[in-house]
Amino acid sequence: MTNQSDMTNYLQTFVEGMISSGVEQAVISPGSRSTPLALLLHRQEKIETFIEVDERSAAFFALGLSKTSLKPVVLLCTSGTAAANYYPAICEANASHIPLIILTTDRPHELRQVGAPQAMDQFHLFQSHVKEFIEMAIPEGTKTMLDYAYWQGMRATDTACQIPKGPIHLNFPLREPLLPDLDRTLIIEKATEILVGKKQLSEEQLLECVDAWQEKKGVLVIGGSHTPKEAEVFIKLAETLNWPIISDPLANITSCGKTSPLIMNYADLFIQEVEMSQRPEVVVRFGMLPISKNTMFWLQSLDDATTIYFVDETGDWQDQLKQTQVAIQAEEQTFARAIIEKVKVKTVDSWCNQWIDWQLTTEQQLNELSDMNTLNETTASILVHKKMAENGQLFVSNSNAIRFLDRFSTAEANHYQLFGNRGINGIDGIVSTALGMCATNPERQNVLLIGDLAMYHDMNGLLLAKRYNLPLTIVLLNNNGGGIFSFLSQRQLEVADFEPIFGTPIDLDFSLVAQLYNAKYIKAESLEQLALLLDATQKQPKFQIIEVVGDRQENVQLYEKVVAGLKEKFGKNK
Amino acid sequence: MTNQSDMTNYLQTFVEGMISSGVEQAVISPGSRSTPLALLLHRQEKIETFIEVDERSAAFFALGLSKTSLKPVVLLCTSGTAAANYYPAICEANASHIPLIILTTDRPHELRQVGAPQAMDQFHLFQSHVKEFIEMAIPEGTKTMLDYAYWQGMRATDTACQIPKGPIHLNFPLREPLLPDLDRTLIIEKATEILVGKKQLSEEQLLECVDAWQEKKGVLVIGGSHTPKEAEVFIKLAETLNWPIISDPLANITSCGKTSPLIMNYADLFIQEVEMSQRPEVVVRFGMLPISKNTMFWLQSLDDATTIYFVDETGDWQDQLKQTQVAIQAEEQTFARAIIEKVKVKTVDSWCNQWIDWQLTTEQQLNELSDMNTLNETTASILVHKKMAENGQLFVSNSNAIRFLDRFSTAEANHYQLFGNRGINGIDGIVSTALGMCATNPERQNVLLIGDLAMYHDMNGLLLAKRYNLPLTIVLLNNNGGGIFSFLSQRQLEVADFEPIFGTPIDLDFSLVAQLYNAKYIKAESLEQLALLLDATQKQPKFQIIEVVGDRQENVQLYEKVVAGLKEKFGKNK
Repeated sequence: MTNQSDMTNYLQTFVEGMISSGVEQAVISPGSRSTPLALLLHRQEKIETFIEVDERSAAFFALGLSKTSLKPVVLLCTSGTAAANYYPAICEANASHIPLIILTTDRPHELRQVGAPQAMDQFHLFQSHVKEFIEMAIPEGTKTMLDYAYWQGMRATDTACQIPKGPIHLNFPLREPLLPDLDRTLIIEKATEILVGKKQLSEEQLLECVDAWQEKKGVLVIGGSHTPKEAEVFIKLAETLNWPIISDPLANITSCGKTSPLIMNYADLFIQEVEMSQRPEVVVRFGMLPISKNTMFWLQSLDDATTIYFVDETGDWQDQLKQTQVAIQAEEQTFARAIIEKVKVKTVDSWCNQWIDWQLTTEQQLNELSDMNTLNETTASILVHKKMAENGQLFVSNSNAIRFLDRFSTAEANHYQLFGNRGINGIDGIVSTALGMCATNPERQNVLLIGDLAMYHDMNGLLLAKRYNLPLTIVLLNNNGGGIFSFLSQRQLEVADFEPIFGTPIDLDFSLVAQLYNAKYIKAESLEQLALLLDATQKQPKFQIIEVVGDRQENVQLYEKVVAGLKEKFGKNK
Repeated sequence: MTNQSDMTNYLQTFVEGMISSGVEQAVISPGSRSTPLALLLHRQEKIETFIEVDERSAAFFALGLSKTSLKPVVLLCTSGTAAANYYPAICEANASHIPLIILTTDRPHELRQVGAPQAMDQFHLFQSHVKEFIEMAIPEGTKTMLDYAYWQGMRATDTACQIPKGPIHLNFPLREPLLPDLDRTLIIEKATEILVGKKQLSEEQLLECVDAWQEKKGVLVIGGSHTPKEAEVFIKLAETLNWPIISDPLANITSCGKTSPLIMNYADLFIQEVEMSQRPEVVVRFGMLPISKNTMFWLQSLDDATTIYFVDETGDWQDQLKQTQVAIQAEEQTFARAIIEKVKVKTVDSWCNQWIDWQLTTEQQLNELSDMNTLNETTASILVHKKMAENGQLFVSNSNAIRFLDRFSTAEANHYQLFGNRGINGIDGIVSTALGMCATNPERQNVLLIGDLAMYHDMNGLLLAKRYNLPLTIVLLNNNGGGIFSFLSQRQLEVADFEPIFGTPIDLDFSLVAQLYNAKYIKAESLEQLALLLDATQKQPKFQIIEVVGDRQENVQLYEKVVAGLKEKFGKNK
């Protein structure tokens, strides 16, 4: 039997180790085996704790906290299937490099492989989707074991935070009695300082890039998630080189508050439609490919006359086109700033001017469409983007929602930050991740743009909003089913095959969902009304669901109308 | 590029292989990469398909289908985090030996490790919680590859169904285009016959048991899940030996419609309270330990004078007490029947009479308590058990719900079947598993007994009831939080520690939940009203939520009152 005081000292020392490496928040799901860690985290003043019964939502909430705070966040649950519910969020955290510290509790060795209740094999439970799996020792109170506990807490947290960041799983075998000794206070004086270096190119390597890029016909392609501040650097880089810049919405190029004629935010719409008389000599990519399939097809169409550079600090080779000729493994921002300093001569205007023309022609085409002035899922998405306030936070769901933003949102003067789960692009856990974002900065404007299926998938997450009074505005694009499939090849199917498998209408009355979780509910009837509602979120944030009723066919028709108009204007196929 | 017709033939042949080994149902979650398999399953007349957007609920629903039909059930989803949502149900299926055939779809090799969207490492995704992981070949249309596809479908399904049964994971790399050729029909004449043998003891081994058991003071302890028909055999075995029988509720001893004075259904209440002047010479256990902790402590208190036999066909060593002296690895029913035939002499009545006395005294004590005549969570649970109709199906949730049944339900003349998820005892996925049970035999009376936290955890599952008109009656024991902890050591904590971490009130209005999913909602105000409502479910099954408002403290107080009364009556500590 483990001594109660020894167990308490051991676990508290472990917690102190995590704190030393930067842990400030923990999300706990109730359970029996996890009792001592839950109580010690709850009692620990330096750690803010959140409680959520559904472990799947709890894990995505932690993901959202860490995504926004940029700090490691702890997850704690009991033994058994509880931990398996963490899996989707862990896969996403691993792919998008978010440092989660997952603590699972377990039967001790003598209660394994014996049919003990709520016990299962938790070793390497999350397979290749965590950076490390650590089986902790049974708690003991010796100096050696307290040093070990501190070390693992400190070291594992730091490992999660090292580039490439990612989740770490620690499994704690705990013996009964499970109640810690809450009356005793162990004073732990330890704190470990960590000085972190950055991957940087040498002067020589930098000059090689500058020589290869300046004065060349180039295109900057920015994928992955970046902060608005980082986005500004990319725009500055584009301006320095005088190159057009194509980006993913999550790169925050169109939401960092800077406008520039070089920002090709309509690339998805025009890039496949225009006659490209001048092909680029250089393409410089940062991070993963942007979401736009048309941009991907265009990149794929480039031949060897174009040299493709790929910059990524993590060492991930994110290039499904396998075109990379020069891979630059260095911290992106430091690298971009160094290039900006060294470039002396801009590329001639004639190169970017054709791009600017395409962009303006597309803008004109959109302005001509009356559908862009009535309320639908596309215009609602554009409006959400436009109505984001200074330092606001917008979380955008996968599937259609992010594609509306990608295709139709332009760089405006408003400065805010866009977030999403684009590691594996699931529609699971979106509500909880957005609430994690909101919980990090609840005083700001916080908005979630989401479709009905993603909303349904993570409805349980709404309990967090209710419990912690999180003032999230949810703009719900409700087309009653899987809207994305109407854009894909599946739409060729007969209705009898399409509707049950891909359309999947769910017929839920979301005003009841709002009532269930104490959210305000409003159905937006017009763009003007939606604008007023969004204006209000800037001044007085509150937990509310604004429903925009959409139509799966209408979304496609609007898109096709835009493309048809562009075909006409650009006359590529004539 | 894979030829569309080759891909179709390959996948259809695979599906035919699964059908040959007994697949009749599939649960599909929508997605793009899984399109060809989804359409082929949907179009296949020999397979009934269900669609559910939330993969976690889909997997538990499949678990419920298979648990009730005793046949292998297919799960299909797209690539990425979708499959990770299956994990909790897979862990449960593996622990409770349910044959699920999990089909995940994946990017082909050339789109792996390249940052392709919605792609992640799906190899051995479910770690040690599946019997097998199979990476399928890229579809090809040669005879060799069609033979391979059929073989894997047939063989993998059979492997899932071999003892010990369990889930199997097949990962399909699929190339675009993803639409199969639905116009062509491949006639597959293959069918493979499988003759399955059973583990049986030899005549000599059987006689060794009979000699060791007959005329001895013995106790039968039945854990694990058994059908009512199997339960009858265990009762017959007890009668043949003239031994008391202690069982887990899921063994269906108290719900198989047979009454016998030998059934010790109140064992949890009295076994630690009575003065046991005669200790057993033999204990024969079937399956895992029953849920009762008191029974476990009593077993633990036995010394070497008692020989413990453990019968389990699966080869699992389910004995956390590590007392097993004789392990019998043979099919339980065949073994029990053979023993019944061979036993010639019963044990003397004096042995079982003391047990029957304890049982009757406990019954008397319960009858004296006025709380047993008013509506509370305990009495509601007893009433549900009593009101189950001929061939009805009752699913009981984990945590408190199953403990109420274990402690307080008696063997009555009503014959029905009780189900639960007792592999790992999670409170996740209960609603969906119960709906899978209901979907298998929707014409019968189908009831779910569940607490509010488990109901909340799997609320999404209710969409299946709405979509498929599943007439499940949900009896919701709502004590607004984690009632089980009020029975455990955690209740010693201060309220400020207990309520947020263990009490976890969720304050949900379940009438809104009912409205959201088109269920009828009734709050039961008295035992009489609840009786009438349950009577009605026998005649006219419908999808409804009957809420019983409970109180966490009241549950404990009632239990403590019972135990105090028994201490008085048995006077062990006097």
